[in-house]
Amino acid sequence: MDITSVAGIVVAIGLILVGQALEGGHVGSILQATAALIVFGGTVGATMVAFPTRDFVRGMRMLKLAFGNPTHDLPALSQRIVEFASVARRDGVLALEGRLPEIDDPFLRKALQFAVDGVDGEVTRSSLETAIDSEFQEQAVGAKVWESMGGYAPTIGILGAVLGLIHVMENLNDPSKLGGGIATAFVATIYGVGSANILFLPIANKLKRKLTLEKERKTLIAEGVLSIQEGLNPRVLEEKLRAFTGEEAPAEPQKKAA
Amino acid sequence: MDITSVAGIVVAIGLILVGQALEGGHVGSILQATAALIVFGGTVGATMVAFPTRDFVRGMRMLKLAFGNPTHDLPALSQRIVEFASVARRDGVLALEGRLPEIDDPFLRKALQFAVDGVDGEVTRSSLETAIDSEFQEQAVGAKVWESMGGYAPTIGILGAVLGLIHVMENLNDPSKLGGGIATAFVATIYGVGSANILFLPIANKLKRKLTLEKERKTLIAEGVLSIQEGLNPRVLEEKLRAFTGEEAPAEPQKKAA
Amino acid sequence: MDITSVAGIVVAIGLILVGQALEGGHVGSILQATAALIVFGGTVGATMVAFPTRDFVRGMRMLKLAFGNPTHDLPALSQRIVEFASVARRDGVLALEGRLPEIDDPFLRKALQFAVDGVDGEVTRSSLETAIDSEFQEQAVGAKVWESMGGYAPTIGILGAVLGLIHVMENLNDPSKLGGGIATAFVATIYGVGSANILFLPIANKLKRKLTLEKERKTLIAEGVLSIQEGLNPRVLEEKLRAFTGEEAPAEPQKKAA
Amino acid sequence: MDITSVAGIVVAIGLILVGQALEGGHVGSILQATAALIVFGGTVGATMVAFPTRDFVRGMRMLKLAFGNPTHDLPALSQRIVEFASVARRDGVLALEGRLPEIDDPFLRKALQFAVDGVDGEVTRSSLETAIDSEFQEQAVGAKVWESMGGYAPTIGILGAVLGLIHVMENLNDPSKLGGGIATAFVATIYGVGSANILFLPIANKLKRKLTLEKERKTLIAEGVLSIQEGLNPRVLEEKLRAFTGEEAPAEPQKKAA
Amino acid sequence: MDITSVAGIVVAIGLILVGQALEGGHVGSILQATAALIVFGGTVGATMVAFPTRDFVRGMRMLKLAFGNPTHDLPALSQRIVEFASVARRDGVLALEGRLPEIDDPFLRKALQFAVDGVDGEVTRSSLETAIDSEFQEQAVGAKVWESMGGYAPTIGILGAVLGLIHVMENLNDPSKLGGGIATAFVATIYGVGSANILFLPIANKLKRKLTLEKERKTLIAEGVLSIQEGLNPRVLEEKLRAFTGEEAPAEPQKKAA
Repeated sequence: MDITSVAGIVVAIGLILVGQALEGGHVGSILQATAALIVFGGTVGATMVAFPTRDFVRGMRMLKLAFGNPTHDLPALSQRIVEFASVARRDGVLALEGRLPEIDDPFLRKALQFAVDGVDGEVTRSSLETAIDSEFQEQAVGAKVWESMGGYAPTIGILGAVLGLIHVMENLNDPSKLGGGIATAFVATIYGVGSANILFLPIANKLKRKLTLEKERKTLIAEGVLSIQEGLNPRVLEEKLRAFTGEEAPAEPQKKAA
Repeated sequence: MDITSVAGIVVAIGLILVGQALEGGHVGSILQATAALIVFGGTVGATMVAFPTRDFVRGMRMLKLAFGNPTHDLPALSQRIVEFASVARRDGVLALEGRLPEIDDPFLRKALQFAVDGVDGEVTRSSLETAIDSEFQEQAVGAKVWESMGGYAPTIGILGAVLGLIHVMENLNDPSKLGGGIATAFVATIYGVGSANILFLPIANKLKRKLTLEKERKTLIAEGVLSIQEGLNPRVLEEKLRAFTGEEAPAEPQKKAA
Repeated sequence: MDITSVAGIVVAIGLILVGQALEGGHVGSILQATAALIVFGGTVGATMVAFPTRDFVRGMRMLKLAFGNPTHDLPALSQRIVEFASVARRDGVLALEGRLPEIDDPFLRKALQFAVDGVDGEVTRSSLETAIDSEFQEQAVGAKVWESMGGYAPTIGILGAVLGLIHVMENLNDPSKLGGGIATAFVATIYGVGSANILFLPIANKLKRKLTLEKERKTLIAEGVLSIQEGLNPRVLEEKLRAFTGEEAPAEPQKKAA
Repeated sequence: MDITSVAGIVVAIGLILVGQALEGGHVGSILQATAALIVFGGTVGATMVAFPTRDFVRGMRMLKLAFGNPTHDLPALSQRIVEFASVARRDGVLALEGRLPEIDDPFLRKALQFAVDGVDGEVTRSSLETAIDSEFQEQAVGAKVWESMGGYAPTIGILGAVLGLIHVMENLNDPSKLGGGIATAFVATIYGVGSANILFLPIANKLKRKLTLEKERKTLIAEGVLSIQEGLNPRVLEEKLRAFTGEEAPAEPQKKAA
Repeated sequence: MDITSVAGIVVAIGLILVGQALEGGHVGSILQATAALIVFGGTVGATMVAFPTRDFVRGMRMLKLAFGNPTHDLPALSQRIVEFASVARRDGVLALEGRLPEIDDPFLRKALQFAVDGVDGEVTRSSLETAIDSEFQEQAVGAKVWESMGGYAPTIGILGAVLGLIHVMENLNDPSKLGGGIATAFVATIYGVGSANILFLPIANKLKRKLTLEKERKTLIAEGVLSIQEGLNPRVLEEKLRAFTGEEAPAEPQKKAA
């Protein structure tokens, strides 16, 4: 589970409520079903208009990715690819065929399958790149669903507030209702601004970031497998893949020059 | 019909009105002809200034696309193209000529026509790409018309509100009119913010998304037909087109290696 | 004359004023010289700071383009270029020299002049593309002048409103002046928001769109003339140019295959 | 001196003050040292945090460019380069060496020096392009300093206003201080919004525009000198450079065809 | 230490507090623990949701870069690379091996190691470019963490203000609490707007600028080492690297022509 996703929401909402309580406010005064109905109903409705059904569903499903914890251990992955490169160098690319079933990662298996099948290098590159790009584009739409919700929520919140204020204004002759009425109206603002800034937009951001990391991971796989196909020296490949992980080389340059 | 487009509008407006009613507000108090006149008149007028006639008309016509349900079944389309590739491989590209009349999709027919006519590969590619791009650019302007309306509506709504407030201020000596007057003024805000966020901007977004999907569909057709022209192996073509659909290959990698 | 430019302004301002009148407001209460002085003086001044003299003047002159109605009949233009291609194919490119004086369009004449002069294809392409790009860039600055005015006007309007409110606050002890004073202050907001959203930003948008269409037109001319220079078959050229107009081919594919 | 930079500021501030005076407001009521301290102190401080010292200083120094009037006479420059091309064609590139000392423009001199030194064409091109780009990038940061100040000023202005309002609220029991206090608070808003929209943002825009024009000028020089190196015909060079100036060719096409 | 980072914060906060004090406000009235809890708790929480743990931690760590003072002396660096080029020219690239241990900069050492190892030029270029890019991308995420905090803080501040106002409204019948309550509510706005505009956004900007300068520095190293590998003349290399530093050549063009 993605600790910061859960902890962040707990921290944000928790501290805001604690602050509110310390100030002497009742948590109950910011719980209000009609404001929630207006703000979340309006936001979900607007987002449904804004996206085809398939994208909307995909966006909802991607919550799992936002709160899940996909492995993204690039050094270990590089290590494994370098290992495959050594095998291919020693025993030929076909020797990798026996290793395919043990590979969990479908993209790595698919890429190695191209190499094992002896598909032409250019075709492999173009197929893998198209696959990486089109999957990224498709999934990025799921992140945009959350971004859209984060865009609509505050304005729908303002809509709810103005609706509430109209109601207040109509009862202006009864001053005793004035304060409570305005307070009620403001809750819609809180729901709109709060849900956008604590839930929708941060979730969209985390999804985009995780998709970018996943894209980087697949690009590393593609580069690695293409190098295996080209028969690149495993040690050079190791150096090449290290550039992708954004880490400095270990500090023993003399050894490599030997 | 595009279910989410219709359902989204119903959900958004419905739940907002239900919330308003639960709160004790009258729906009547947010129905006001003059506010509508100011907000929608101003918005449509500003949008007319912002676009040439042809674009404005195109934008209005594209409502059909926003609420329609174009087929976008890429796997079936890929299947069909692979089928054509098999025919072309077996009996030559000219054998496809007899199939042309039965093709409904004008872009697929046009692309295959190039192949049947034996037009040079580079010319075919450049013609198809230019056609895809320039049609996308043209239609994207239609989506921008709605985006512009979504941009102008809230500010014109504020304009209407300020106009209303001026009117209220002039009658400030008559406090009994105060509240109702302000309420009236706020309705313009609601029309501006609401129409932008529940109608105009979401419609613009859905149009842009559908145009992108259509562009992807045409790009797949173009790639497929170009591969047919090049005499690519139908099985390799199938693999290549699968990359465009953003779907993982079915989980039987061993079979293909046979 | 560009009908939608004029009609849009009439519709927007007209309906807003009608709405205002229906509501019982006096049009006179939104006519105020000092607010206009502050808002438009401030906006023009800020825009003068923001652009070199030459760009500012160009922006003002481009009003003619915003309200004018340049011909943009791509199919007729394509037809004419195909005609020239037929002449060049039959009688040689030099045969076009006699046709040059009858051409009104300076860019088409200039491009054909290159062909007639026998300038090298690559030089012609690069010269025409540079000319298209640098003219577009230069003129786009004119559209940006209006966009800037649309950006400054609302904030200068708020400035005017706050200035007015300060004045009101200083007279707070005289409640009879309160309402009217605030009303006056709000007029500056209306001028700022209204001029930006009904005039400046829509005009900037229309200019940008018309410049884009003009750029497309010139690109079509450049492609056409370069194809004439290369001696492309007029029928193939016709097909090629059709892709630029964003129109589907006429529905008789069989004929072309003949 | 850049007339519009000075005139724009005079027009904007002047007309706003005239409007304020006509309205019966005292100019004195918008002169307030503490508001200025808060708004400009906060803005300058935030901008210092936002940029390294060197960039901040560069930004301040670029005020000279914003109000200065650099020559940008592209036709005259083109003329001169064509002249050099004629000399180089007649007497060889080395003949230009004697002309170098009389050239004021350091970039033109540097570029011609490459030609005179007989540096390889590709090296010359890449060196000049890198020099143009990196100088533009560096100077663009100076314009961004002003843009940042334009971004921070309005929000710091709001900060000052809220600070003032807190002060007012604390004295709420003394209504006689209410109006004046609020007026004082609003001055911070005016300083923030006004300085951003009349000074900072327009200055940033003018700087960016002037840098773009300077980049175009240098690109023209680079293209011209590279063509001299290649021994391009001066008449063709003249035509080529004209494309950069965004001007139509003079209307005597027949003469050139002779 | 980065003087402007520290001085900017001191100037901004200092002058705002001085202004506040001059105005007669108590600094104490803007110190409030619950507002801080709400605003900073909410902001940190939202940012935790928005980024994977690793990125969030990286962002926090990069504070050191924002307030540190990395060397960025490009002319001295160019000088050193030219020196290495002279050595390589005179005694061969391998002669640089002995110099490697004395080099502090890990990127320069890594790049020279490639040259010494005799790695192919294209592989070196691609490895260095990938390393520069992926490190820049990774670190830019750290700057984005601060940018996000600058985006969330003002809206969470408004949330806190609205929460406070609700509380005030509920006590509306007790006017004596009114002013102080509103003042309290406004402090959340100040915390949100102030922290975003004086701390978070400027820090994000400085980080991005420093990362860009570091990227330029590494690009200069990469270009220099690649030129050493190609055996470029040290004097030409000096000229080439000068283009990167954005400085004009020293004013003695005649000497070089000799």
